[in-house]
Amino acid sequence: MKGHRPQSRLAFGSGGQTPGARELPEEVAVAISFNGSTQAVMMATPADLKDFARGFAHTEGLADLDEITKITPVQTDKGIDLQIWVKKAAEARLAARRRYMAGPVGCGLCGIDSLDEALRDLTPVTTDLAMSPSEVMAAVAALPQFQKLHDTTRAVHAAGLWSYGEMLTVREDVGRHNALDKLAGAWLWDNRTIPGALQSPPRYGAVVLTSRVSIDMVQKVAAFGQPMIIAVSAPTAQAVELAEKLNITLIALARPDRFEVFTHSHRIRPEVAHVA
Amino acid sequence: MKGHRPQSRLAFGSGGQTPGARELPEEVAVAISFNGSTQAVMMATPADLKDFARGFAHTEGLADLDEITKITPVQTDKGIDLQIWVKKAAEARLAARRRYMAGPVGCGLCGIDSLDEALRDLTPVTTDLAMSPSEVMAAVAALPQFQKLHDTTRAVHAAGLWSYGEMLTVREDVGRHNALDKLAGAWLWDNRTIPGALQSPPRYGAVVLTSRVSIDMVQKVAAFGQPMIIAVSAPTAQAVELAEKLNITLIALARPDRFEVFTHSHRIRPEVAHVA
Repeated sequence: MKGHRPQSRLAFGSGGQTPGARELPEEVAVAISFNGSTQAVMMATPADLKDFARGFAHTEGLADLDEITKITPVQTDKGIDLQIWVKKAAEARLAARRRYMAGPVGCGLCGIDSLDEALRDLTPVTTDLAMSPSEVMAAVAALPQFQKLHDTTRAVHAAGLWSYGEMLTVREDVGRHNALDKLAGAWLWDNRTIPGALQSPPRYGAVVLTSRVSIDMVQKVAAFGQPMIIAVSAPTAQAVELAEKLNITLIALARPDRFEVFTHSHRIRPEVAHVA
Repeated sequence: MKGHRPQSRLAFGSGGQTPGARELPEEVAVAISFNGSTQAVMMATPADLKDFARGFAHTEGLADLDEITKITPVQTDKGIDLQIWVKKAAEARLAARRRYMAGPVGCGLCGIDSLDEALRDLTPVTTDLAMSPSEVMAAVAALPQFQKLHDTTRAVHAAGLWSYGEMLTVREDVGRHNALDKLAGAWLWDNRTIPGALQSPPRYGAVVLTSRVSIDMVQKVAAFGQPMIIAVSAPTAQAVELAEKLNITLIALARPDRFEVFTHSHRIRPEVAHVA
């Protein structure tokens, strides 16, 4: 599946009524299972599924990359069975975690069964980086070049990792959480030092998001280990509070010519003066 | 809680660096329980909570309005416990349903535990209405006037019910599913004929959405019983497929001067010629 397909439609406007077609993003039900037990079912864009499996396992704190022995996406008539196979030690931990979840977890918050579990305890991000205002704006300006699926469909989210002047990896999905999980999975996997021994994360940067920033997005970025979020849309008040606590610089309402910093602005460094 | 609060931030742009504040939407963990058993935990805007309780119960097919005996939002230090109390008959049905869900359900899809359960069987919408192209565009143009929270925060979704030339009710939330649930809950409750005997739905219209349209939004609109969706953003391919099946007219990429019809365009009627 390529993630989109044409759909016929009638367009109305000043020119009257025009038949035609539009490319729409695909969303399929994806069931993520660990050693045969379903953990979550989500609607997602059916692309980069192994990245999704790895990223979801990692950012939800379910299994680390070196605990995953095999990933098998199985197409069924209802959707995709994304089967993750993990080592015995991880399986025991997952079983215990599943009790707390009282069922599968979706976006990191819905699917849990008590307010106590809603806010996971995460470790503040200790990694650091510094970016000038012009680099922040360059990161925002760079993202659209990598939004291949959005170019076609105008309807999917993107998450990219920007580090020291370049966009390293970008992933897209109809769901903003999924785009971020796919990014984390792809980046962590591609940058493991030796198979089975992950150096996590291998290079720090800013996670650039097309979406708004809610608490669960901040949680996932913290689990990804990245110290900065640059989002096109706005954050919620509670996302700002959590980013403050987790030592993440939260930049939002970012455009190629402006942005707003809500937390840890010490990572924004002065522009380096150009010597003429 | 009023749903938003000021947050200090540093703005960067052509004018350099400016300190100031921005109003951000609040999101809190809301646990929805039925007769003491938690069904779902979601992040939501802490406003219109009784509407949310009624709408969620109705659009997820968990309990109907005349089965609900009491709704008690309880503020805790972790969030809000939204306690719904239902009659004995509904409780038995909920217990059975909970087994299938294997845990709580969030947006209507995540939180369920198998692909078989991902697509609920819903009855096609049998109610009808007809709208001219100019009325569709008028409905889109009208929505921003009712987006009070969005005016302040620029970061929340809205769902409104438009019927025969007027916007009847609008609700807002950081989550698009929640905005739709609040709308359904508010509208169905305000228009019950006598307490305990709901005439469902009392008046048909188009559900106007600021968000994109995924399968779960179509499911909720079908459960709400409304025959038309007018969305500002794009649909997914599968949402179009489901709207086709459920006899819902799906209009998307709608602006005050244009829109696209993906399904059941028979509900778009020719403009009535004005007699000079």
